[in-house]
Amino acid sequence: MKQISIEEILEAHASGAISISEATESIKNLSYEDIGFARVDHARAERQGFPEVIVGQGKTKEQALGIFEKLIARSPNVLITRTNAEVFGLIRNIFTDAEWHEAARLIRVQRDKRELGTGEIAVVTAGTSDIPIAEEAALTAETMGNQVKRIWDAGVAGIHRILAEREILQNSRVVIVVAGMEGALPSVVGGLVKVPVIAVPTSIGYGASFGGIAALLGMLNSCASNVTVVNIDNGFGAGFTASLINRRWQSE
Amino acid sequence: MKQISIEEILEAHASGAISISEATESIKNLSYEDIGFARVDHARAERQGFPEVIVGQGKTKEQALGIFEKLIARSPNVLITRTNAEVFGLIRNIFTDAEWHEAARLIRVQRDKRELGTGEIAVVTAGTSDIPIAEEAALTAETMGNQVKRIWDAGVAGIHRILAEREILQNSRVVIVVAGMEGALPSVVGGLVKVPVIAVPTSIGYGASFGGIAALLGMLNSCASNVTVVNIDNGFGAGFTASLINRRWQSE
Amino acid sequence: MKQISIEEILEAHASGAISISEATESIKNLSYEDIGFARVDHARAERQGFPEVIVGQGKTKEQALGIFEKLIARSPNVLITRTNAEVFGLIRNIFTDAEWHEAARLIRVQRDKRELGTGEIAVVTAGTSDIPIAEEAALTAETMGNQVKRIWDAGVAGIHRILAEREILQNSRVVIVVAGMEGALPSVVGGLVKVPVIAVPTSIGYGASFGGIAALLGMLNSCASNVTVVNIDNGFGAGFTASLINRRWQSE
Amino acid sequence: MKQISIEEILEAHASGAISISEATESIKNLSYEDIGFARVDHARAERQGFPEVIVGQGKTKEQALGIFEKLIARSPNVLITRTNAEVFGLIRNIFTDAEWHEAARLIRVQRDKRELGTGEIAVVTAGTSDIPIAEEAALTAETMGNQVKRIWDAGVAGIHRILAEREILQNSRVVIVVAGMEGALPSVVGGLVKVPVIAVPTSIGYGASFGGIAALLGMLNSCASNVTVVNIDNGFGAGFTASLINRRWQSE
Amino acid sequence: MKQISIEEILEAHASGAISISEATESIKNLSYEDIGFARVDHARAERQGFPEVIVGQGKTKEQALGIFEKLIARSPNVLITRTNAEVFGLIRNIFTDAEWHEAARLIRVQRDKRELGTGEIAVVTAGTSDIPIAEEAALTAETMGNQVKRIWDAGVAGIHRILAEREILQNSRVVIVVAGMEGALPSVVGGLVKVPVIAVPTSIGYGASFGGIAALLGMLNSCASNVTVVNIDNGFGAGFTASLINRRWQSE
Amino acid sequence: MKQISIEEILEAHASGAISISEATESIKNLSYEDIGFARVDHARAERQGFPEVIVGQGKTKEQALGIFEKLIARSPNVLITRTNAEVFGLIRNIFTDAEWHEAARLIRVQRDKRELGTGEIAVVTAGTSDIPIAEEAALTAETMGNQVKRIWDAGVAGIHRILAEREILQNSRVVIVVAGMEGALPSVVGGLVKVPVIAVPTSIGYGASFGGIAALLGMLNSCASNVTVVNIDNGFGAGFTASLINRRWQSE
Amino acid sequence: MKQISIEEILEAHASGAISISEATESIKNLSYEDIGFARVDHARAERQGFPEVIVGQGKTKEQALGIFEKLIARSPNVLITRTNAEVFGLIRNIFTDAEWHEAARLIRVQRDKRELGTGEIAVVTAGTSDIPIAEEAALTAETMGNQVKRIWDAGVAGIHRILAEREILQNSRVVIVVAGMEGALPSVVGGLVKVPVIAVPTSIGYGASFGGIAALLGMLNSCASNVTVVNIDNGFGAGFTASLINRRWQSE
Amino acid sequence: MKQISIEEILEAHASGAISISEATESIKNLSYEDIGFARVDHARAERQGFPEVIVGQGKTKEQALGIFEKLIARSPNVLITRTNAEVFGLIRNIFTDAEWHEAARLIRVQRDKRELGTGEIAVVTAGTSDIPIAEEAALTAETMGNQVKRIWDAGVAGIHRILAEREILQNSRVVIVVAGMEGALPSVVGGLVKVPVIAVPTSIGYGASFGGIAALLGMLNSCASNVTVVNIDNGFGAGFTASLINRRWQSE
Repeated sequence: MKQISIEEILEAHASGAISISEATESIKNLSYEDIGFARVDHARAERQGFPEVIVGQGKTKEQALGIFEKLIARSPNVLITRTNAEVFGLIRNIFTDAEWHEAARLIRVQRDKRELGTGEIAVVTAGTSDIPIAEEAALTAETMGNQVKRIWDAGVAGIHRILAEREILQNSRVVIVVAGMEGALPSVVGGLVKVPVIAVPTSIGYGASFGGIAALLGMLNSCASNVTVVNIDNGFGAGFTASLINRRWQSE
Repeated sequence: MKQISIEEILEAHASGAISISEATESIKNLSYEDIGFARVDHARAERQGFPEVIVGQGKTKEQALGIFEKLIARSPNVLITRTNAEVFGLIRNIFTDAEWHEAARLIRVQRDKRELGTGEIAVVTAGTSDIPIAEEAALTAETMGNQVKRIWDAGVAGIHRILAEREILQNSRVVIVVAGMEGALPSVVGGLVKVPVIAVPTSIGYGASFGGIAALLGMLNSCASNVTVVNIDNGFGAGFTASLINRRWQSE
Repeated sequence: MKQISIEEILEAHASGAISISEATESIKNLSYEDIGFARVDHARAERQGFPEVIVGQGKTKEQALGIFEKLIARSPNVLITRTNAEVFGLIRNIFTDAEWHEAARLIRVQRDKRELGTGEIAVVTAGTSDIPIAEEAALTAETMGNQVKRIWDAGVAGIHRILAEREILQNSRVVIVVAGMEGALPSVVGGLVKVPVIAVPTSIGYGASFGGIAALLGMLNSCASNVTVVNIDNGFGAGFTASLINRRWQSE
Repeated sequence: MKQISIEEILEAHASGAISISEATESIKNLSYEDIGFARVDHARAERQGFPEVIVGQGKTKEQALGIFEKLIARSPNVLITRTNAEVFGLIRNIFTDAEWHEAARLIRVQRDKRELGTGEIAVVTAGTSDIPIAEEAALTAETMGNQVKRIWDAGVAGIHRILAEREILQNSRVVIVVAGMEGALPSVVGGLVKVPVIAVPTSIGYGASFGGIAALLGMLNSCASNVTVVNIDNGFGAGFTASLINRRWQSE
Repeated sequence: MKQISIEEILEAHASGAISISEATESIKNLSYEDIGFARVDHARAERQGFPEVIVGQGKTKEQALGIFEKLIARSPNVLITRTNAEVFGLIRNIFTDAEWHEAARLIRVQRDKRELGTGEIAVVTAGTSDIPIAEEAALTAETMGNQVKRIWDAGVAGIHRILAEREILQNSRVVIVVAGMEGALPSVVGGLVKVPVIAVPTSIGYGASFGGIAALLGMLNSCASNVTVVNIDNGFGAGFTASLINRRWQSE
Repeated sequence: MKQISIEEILEAHASGAISISEATESIKNLSYEDIGFARVDHARAERQGFPEVIVGQGKTKEQALGIFEKLIARSPNVLITRTNAEVFGLIRNIFTDAEWHEAARLIRVQRDKRELGTGEIAVVTAGTSDIPIAEEAALTAETMGNQVKRIWDAGVAGIHRILAEREILQNSRVVIVVAGMEGALPSVVGGLVKVPVIAVPTSIGYGASFGGIAALLGMLNSCASNVTVVNIDNGFGAGFTASLINRRWQSE
Repeated sequence: MKQISIEEILEAHASGAISISEATESIKNLSYEDIGFARVDHARAERQGFPEVIVGQGKTKEQALGIFEKLIARSPNVLITRTNAEVFGLIRNIFTDAEWHEAARLIRVQRDKRELGTGEIAVVTAGTSDIPIAEEAALTAETMGNQVKRIWDAGVAGIHRILAEREILQNSRVVIVVAGMEGALPSVVGGLVKVPVIAVPTSIGYGASFGGIAALLGMLNSCASNVTVVNIDNGFGAGFTASLINRRWQSE
Repeated sequence: MKQISIEEILEAHASGAISISEATESIKNLSYEDIGFARVDHARAERQGFPEVIVGQGKTKEQALGIFEKLIARSPNVLITRTNAEVFGLIRNIFTDAEWHEAARLIRVQRDKRELGTGEIAVVTAGTSDIPIAEEAALTAETMGNQVKRIWDAGVAGIHRILAEREILQNSRVVIVVAGMEGALPSVVGGLVKVPVIAVPTSIGYGASFGGIAALLGMLNSCASNVTVVNIDNGFGAGFTASLINRRWQSE
């Protein structure tokens, strides 16, 4: 028997065919809300520990608002990434506690501010121009209940700049490194710490940086074994995964 | 004052210029052994929690053996990856507890078998041909003190195969997904769990798979937010980072 | 016997050199109308079952209008794809039954609404941002006489969303799957049905999606054997081919 | 309630919780056989109308044989593609009706030879060197119950060669076109017929053909609207999908 | 004897060290005019039979005008390609016989209209959108003293359109074929004629056409042996080389 | 009037429907010989002035021999390119006037040695390693009735080497330039002559030469306007087209 | 003991723990100024002989100004590259000796005009459009105390233009060659001189120049052994490195 | 006055038309020896300060030997790179002072051992596998009269390894850095020194290193301004250019 709707699950439970815990699990895996142009995935918060984030890029402002309203109705914390001030205007009219983060181009509502991490997350950039992506990562991690330490502009051509921050790095549970151009910083940081390093290539650079490909390839080929990589400019994904790594584990 | 050699550090300590803990930290960061063709990095074990692993590829068998001897002298567990049976023969002559893992083409000495993780690590493959890379990841994680669950051949074209393993996946602290061809499996797995997923693209495929590029790009563009990626065929890096994620944190 | 011009064909028929059916076939293969900047291919409707569609991109609005007028003079249904509201204004002034489809950026005249298919065509998108391309496919299929079922925003990171639509998918004669980013959805859908799946990569995504290359490669390397692929953002081609697959065959 | 094993499905049916048809559907979707290195997907035959084909490439000969034995136990027709004579030797020892097709490097057992198509499938090559891939397509289609017409070496630089076969092409329900180098033939064929054309780029060529990329890109950018594309050298996929297109539809 | 400056050449001739014909040859090879931002190469007309053409793209309008004035002072026919109406305005103010060709975005002064070719040059396009590049080629060839036949919109998906022009093609001394998308037309034309075919890929297309790469690769891999290729959108180069091919040879 | 088979053409002529010259033209365009794995295109010699050349690569030796026998039966001169000594052995057994050219890996029968060109063809290489491809070009041109001048190893890093050959270059009707690595030589040669230059990139080089891509791109972007390009290592195509350029034109 | 701040270094020196020269070295390596969004690297001037240059691209105008003020406070000469007139306005208001170089889009303050080189630096361009990048190189070199010779528009298609400047080239201590399109000029220049040649590919070109990739690859594959390459459009890096090469060495 | 042949130069001198120094200069620029398959460029030694080096790759052993004999007849020091032991055998039979360097796969004759540099050249590798390319660079520099310091296996993941060699680096006149994988080391070294750094990407790595492309791109995008790059695995070019940088300048 396949259980596709919540109604069927409840019915099955009522009839005694499935237990409470089975019913709960089923609902967690299957529930979503169809609003025409989108299937809002309420189950994801349960499954992944955070509501579906809205990527603003490629959506009309009406679509962004529509999805936002569905999510905020059930979840205390919601993010819209890669969006603009106009969408923020629409949302702010209705939700007065919405915040606009200019550098990261990100809208946030954060009503639940409990801390959920076991340690701290360090976010490092190689240059000044990498800050917007790093802010997206840092804000995501903070919204998901983490303490974040920011280290900006510590690229490898002035190696003493990152070495000076060794203590912060070595006390973090996970490090996010954001770099464009040659993307060398994650390898250096990776060699300094014994925790996972999430590398975020940025599209910063020119010529043979090819919109971030050079940095991406550099990071994928890192000679440090504790480096994993996310998509170019994907600050959100880095902040999200870092939060999962830092989260207290069930058995802990 | 820069402390470059252990001797100088000790001298400085003897003279009272630096404390015990400062001396220890300095040694941890700076010590390595120069054997001509390589600088064996004994400090890495301290810094990263595992000795420098030897990548066999691109080294002569004499070089592989030389580095191995230096590492095994100080560390209970050592791996040589991407190597061959001939190197194993050389090492087995001297170290009789060395093991040869044919599928992963990996030599292992594991003298310290303590368990160090907080949870389990699941390793999943999309197809049968991805198993060698997955074994490299699994063996690395096991050597670093983790419990590993293996799920082989559960690609998305028969989606029920991975859905059937939902329970194992959802009980893991971190999941490694190894896939070639279109590299779609990490996105599906990422959507099923609330822990980090490390995706390993493999060079399995033909034609427009371009030696793993298709899988790599698919994974980098995953619509699941908890997926990070390592280099094509880099099972070792995935196993290594998964171990760091799973390791009990100092404050835990 | 093949002939080059209609005149010659008719002459040949008049002289008894070729039969009526031969003359018809020849005309069908050879006839087109030269209007200076274009050779309007009236024979294509006969040969392919649908008039030459006008791709608006790269044509001046005068050229688009000029070709449109030639086609509509002979064919009840005409499409202009990748066009804009200004061209629509020009055409609407003359042909009041022309429709403008904003999402798909497509102009349609549909005077013949007979149904020509043997089954239904399902059109599925992975995300909300893929809808414009999917609409181009759906509108093309409808204009060519098919019943279309739309399933929007059912990407693989919430796998239950597509599984919930299994019934619609399994009752379709052909399925079109439109996806950007990692392009994983066609493989999952392909594994669920026993009909052809036409995959349409979209340019939706950022960074290493490279304007749709990641999705395209993912689809070409699909582990499902019933997936074929069209160009990035080519909703029209997918709708067109799906219509040919769904069309009742002569012997049927 | 999730039904994961056949046992549970049957139990649920026995208890009256699910009907016969529900039980059948569940089994069809979920059943596979785990043989350690592979999960043999018996349900696929039901779902897709043909058993899982074994891609020999990347599997040891023991793995190929192991999977083959599981499939042949339940299905009359089985293919192994991209394999070699040594694997054939192993299989022939046990299954004396196995056939070896040298050009296509394919092993076939075909015990069920019923015809299942509504029309014929034409398979065309641009050059002599494309024949092996075309044979893989043709043999797949024949094994799946179709009549196949072969047209070899009809590339566009001698355009009369393909024009001479117009009648065969126009009488087919679907056409497979196999071409390397510039991959121009599918566009020409696409313009001659009103049925779907499946284009198979081959790795034939040198220099800037880049192992089939030139042909692949040519086909993806075809100006004929009825062309879809499969992976480079993927004759099997083309034959498989063509068979699904040609198959009599349920309502037919 | 080669000399560096005209003065030295003349001196050498005056002194009897070199003959008249040697002096002439030397001047032909070495003369240019340095105007600061450019070295106007007057010798090229002598060496190549046409003055240096000005590529407008990447030059300020003052630079374009400055070079134009130097060239027109010595040569009856001058072209500026890839330019705009503003530059034309500047030039037209001074040189009232300058012509503006909107489609090709080209300025021309043609004071010498003698015919220099042995035969005719055919210029063919696959689609309507390719016309601007084809016009650049045609205008270049006409300015260099050739008879040009234009055949627009004869792409391979309606193969009868190009077959209908076989006579013009077969009577030409050289054929230029301009095509975007899959770039298949040159192969078909190449197979129909026994003269050189110059293929010009255009950036027309979308998605996997990659700004003309697909067409470029298709043409480089042409199965017709008489096809050579120029850069994407390089109509000028095609017209220029076609003119050299068509030019009466000295011994003729 | 065009006809499909020779029989029909003759019949039509017999009936008076077409003239002798029309019948001849038809046969020239349509005739080929189907030998199973190949359609030998006898008409090409008529249409293009040279028989179909056999590309040995990708054909079995039986196929190469089979096609050779069909071609030599009707044509005095035949080439097999990219072949090997074993195929030569087979052919030499039957056709004792066959020649083996080791450097170019080419088999030639040349029974008709008439000279057909109006001028000479120069073939130039940048380095010693480019000679095999250059020989393929030179032998092709000689077999097609041309006088060829060879200039080996005149790359641009020693610019005086090519300048020293200016006289030969300037007296040629067409120049073929063969170069690997950066592919700069065609631009220099193009600037020295007023005839067409055919550039042949070779796969000579290492690292970022990418098997000839660097040279190919360099040649496509040549700042000399009289340079056209063929595929990487396509010496045959260059020699073939150069021969067509050099051929006396009908009106000459 | 790690010395991280200047204070600690001084303290250590005061206490006699480190010598004057040790203290100096430490400060040189470690000092930087943290201004929030940037770590201004004052030590770089000491280490590299020139203050950190500000790359304007990707920075807000406030950031550019903020960093500029910190640098100019300690260094007589400062450059901002890839900037615009608006930033210049801000800076000119405060620092009246700032200069705006329109072609190079560069702001310069040059208060120390001492000459520091042993010879001259030649800067050469292939075309007029390459001048802006070449000016960036020339201005950088001049600001760093060098004599610069400019040679504009001497591309290889008119080879006599560069040969005419052989004397200047051969008298230079280092040559910078700036070229787009095929990037052939550095090889020719490299062959003419016995000093290092720094090649700068530019993004000048169209079509298959791919924004400078063609030129970049050409230069990397140069057959002249004395050519090294910098990033596309990186005039600054070329000027900077040329200055280091030309600088009088300590032992000189 | 420039002349083409040595004879003419001498004649001109004899006649008093040119001075001794003009004659010398002319000969230096123009002389080479044509030996059929190669033009041995004796002038290069004069022009570039080192004889033409023989790249063994792509030449037959007879060609390598032939060129070697011509060079050694006039020059005390000759190198053959990318060669093998068989060629060495041939040469050693005749020239008993030839040396074989296995790691670098290089043959050397060094009869002139004078020191020509102003300072030292440091050669650094990131890993053990990069040593062969680094040896090619070091041997080239030594053969050209330089003192070389070797630093092997100092990659950035153990940053203290390179920091420990700061003194050697800072005392060098030029540094060569050889690295595969992510190619990050040149940026770190570049930031530590105030002399030019020549970066050599190697093809060491796997997966997304793409045979050295990742390292190459990383180096081209270096955030250190004093880094220039040579082709992948081009140790020779790096050693050659470093020697020119280190050479005492004429005015020094």
